[in-house]
Amino acid sequence: MPAGRSVDQERLWADVMTLAAITDPQRPYTRRSFSSLFLKGRAWLRDRFAAAGLKVRIDPGGNLIGRMEGSNPALPAIMLGSHSDTVPSGGRFDGVAGLVAALEVTRALGAGHRLLHAVEVVDFLAEEPSDFGVSCVGSRAVAGLLLPDMLDYTAANGERLGDAIDRVGGAAKRLAEARRSDIAAYLELHIEQGVVLESKQIDVGVVTAIVGIARLEVVFQGAADHAGTTPMPLRRDAAVAAARAIAWAAERASSLAAAGRGHFVATAGIVEVEPNAANVVPGRARVIFDIRAEDRALSQEFIAELDGSTGTIAKECTVERARFVLLSDTAPVACDARLGDALARSAARLGLSVLRLASGAGHDAAFIARIAPSAMVFVPCRGGKSHTPEEWADASALAAGAAVLLETTRLIDENAQASERAT
Amino acid sequence: MPAGRSVDQERLWADVMTLAAITDPQRPYTRRSFSSLFLKGRAWLRDRFAAAGLKVRIDPGGNLIGRMEGSNPALPAIMLGSHSDTVPSGGRFDGVAGLVAALEVTRALGAGHRLLHAVEVVDFLAEEPSDFGVSCVGSRAVAGLLLPDMLDYTAANGERLGDAIDRVGGAAKRLAEARRSDIAAYLELHIEQGVVLESKQIDVGVVTAIVGIARLEVVFQGAADHAGTTPMPLRRDAAVAAARAIAWAAERASSLAAAGRGHFVATAGIVEVEPNAANVVPGRARVIFDIRAEDRALSQEFIAELDGSTGTIAKECTVERARFVLLSDTAPVACDARLGDALARSAARLGLSVLRLASGAGHDAAFIARIAPSAMVFVPCRGGKSHTPEEWADASALAAGAAVLLETTRLIDENAQASERAT
Repeated sequence: MPAGRSVDQERLWADVMTLAAITDPQRPYTRRSFSSLFLKGRAWLRDRFAAAGLKVRIDPGGNLIGRMEGSNPALPAIMLGSHSDTVPSGGRFDGVAGLVAALEVTRALGAGHRLLHAVEVVDFLAEEPSDFGVSCVGSRAVAGLLLPDMLDYTAANGERLGDAIDRVGGAAKRLAEARRSDIAAYLELHIEQGVVLESKQIDVGVVTAIVGIARLEVVFQGAADHAGTTPMPLRRDAAVAAARAIAWAAERASSLAAAGRGHFVATAGIVEVEPNAANVVPGRARVIFDIRAEDRALSQEFIAELDGSTGTIAKECTVERARFVLLSDTAPVACDARLGDALARSAARLGLSVLRLASGAGHDAAFIARIAPSAMVFVPCRGGKSHTPEEWADASALAAGAAVLLETTRLIDENAQASERAT
Repeated sequence: MPAGRSVDQERLWADVMTLAAITDPQRPYTRRSFSSLFLKGRAWLRDRFAAAGLKVRIDPGGNLIGRMEGSNPALPAIMLGSHSDTVPSGGRFDGVAGLVAALEVTRALGAGHRLLHAVEVVDFLAEEPSDFGVSCVGSRAVAGLLLPDMLDYTAANGERLGDAIDRVGGAAKRLAEARRSDIAAYLELHIEQGVVLESKQIDVGVVTAIVGIARLEVVFQGAADHAGTTPMPLRRDAAVAAARAIAWAAERASSLAAAGRGHFVATAGIVEVEPNAANVVPGRARVIFDIRAEDRALSQEFIAELDGSTGTIAKECTVERARFVLLSDTAPVACDARLGDALARSAARLGLSVLRLASGAGHDAAFIARIAPSAMVFVPCRGGKSHTPEEWADASALAAGAAVLLETTRLIDENAQASERAT
């Protein structure tokens, strides 16, 4: 074990539980961005940051930042963080685990044990889908990717995103100042939200890349005829076409996923049939495909094949393929390889088993990676469940992940010390 | 052409249009059973029945009956009818065409041109699905199949079916008296609600049987995991299982329909996926299959195969087949062969082309067939469309069908005259 104080598992766990308990009591665990509960959570966080000796501020993008200065003010900061907002009826760990682990790292480093680098703990604003139709609001701002027109996005209650950012302590007018160019490294701990680590009994995952996500809408238009009187050969059944497309996509995605070209998944998560009546042949069927790949070429290949396949299916079912539209398509983001190696080396030093894997979910790190070397540590969670009150990670798993964050922060700083001695 | 007056196409058409126009103006064509519009339609029908010289009454089952006496009171009545209620946003012809054609037959027969048999025109109460969760209310009553506990079925507004029957002029307490045993033959004209006659350019269809209808609920239960982080081989995707089941059913139904064992169709009309979110693997999928067959053995065979197939699919998709439940299952009803021959002979006499076919939809005739020889005449409708404002039948097609009804009524009566002379 390295010198210095280490992670306090009980303190870490108690803080996760305390923050999680700041929830809508009717819908645990709900602390949506911009809500009064969110502000209550932030007030508590601000106190905890201050108690850890951090200097606290809110940047123009609405991010809550606690900073511990380093001994060499010329060096850029090591940034650790995640988010405190949740989805409705979400869990206690998504975001919170990484944020509290980051805070715990600064506490373990100790106020007296100064690094060369400043260390920042960041609660990024609104990582989850917000009422304004945009997610990762704060990390976009830090990366300079919260575009001015997004500030005019309006929630159902009529509030503009820009005004909401101001309301939580940001300064939408000075948004450009939120963009950072002084970050040496960004590290984020997160629960895996999948079953890979758990099923392989691995302590920590080192994230190789954050997948690109494409959303594709496919609509089949047939004829809503009488289910009793329309003979089988005369039908134009849109649901049968959709069913064949969904079955085809699942099979093809499975074989592409097994091809060894990185994480690849495709899901038909939204399926809607009209008129959806027992005695009417479905006249229209809509499917939203969610396609995620570490290798962008793979998702483009799949989408091209799906284009061909759904066209053929439509012809065979004598329906029209009325829509085949890419609703959104983000590029995959590779994590920094050297930071990944540092995380893996730190885990090995701590005697923890490590697996390299891609993140199938989006994270603030995908935006911060645009402006600074970034990497992520995953900790196992029970049954892969996330965005549900059942979400669970063991206290020891969180502590192990936080110890890897701490060790890696020290390692980055030691490398800088070695550089300073060398010069 | 036979002796006597014939069908007046213009009068028939005008009456269909007048009754159809009694509709909710916001949702043409809507005249739901038990509604004030339904009662307005019936008041108009009562006047038209009376103007045709019919004696009008409402039986205890709430059926509006117009009767023309025959010269031999010992003979049972020839009953002609259909229904005046519609589905929401239905068409102008479903039910109305048969009812007005029946009225037109009595007008063509003329008050002075007495048959041996009495002729009755019946507007059966609530043939379409009603707010009480039961259809064919009036024809069930005439067949003695409106069971006493059905009278307690309650609409969303709290009204009991028994009270609603009383409100429209029936007498639920004397329901048993609605049951008839004095019907020589029942004939019903209806639009085909399918495309067979139109696509083959046939004037009239003679119905061989009314299909039996089975409704089957299949539910697959998997796991609602994260669509990004759950690798393809670890998924328990209920929508993929449902999709494969729907595709299998469509293919198998098509081959059974082509096997030459009568009309057979199967439809997955209701498809519901949960949570139905783009970024969540579907954890639950529900499908309602509607299965209709002229030959009951065929639908039983299909259901047994679907049982096996969905079980296999569930295993292959590592989901649970949580439900496989027959919600309802009515037996097919054969139409009376001799009456069918009489209809076909009459059509041939009138120079009309005829096709024998099964009815894929349920009709009042399916209930009346339990207590009297029954048969149906189908007339073509445009594109097979029904239960929609687009529903359409040409005036000449309706008149041709009504002429077949008239001719067959005369033929039945002539046969009785021949019998009387012979004795």
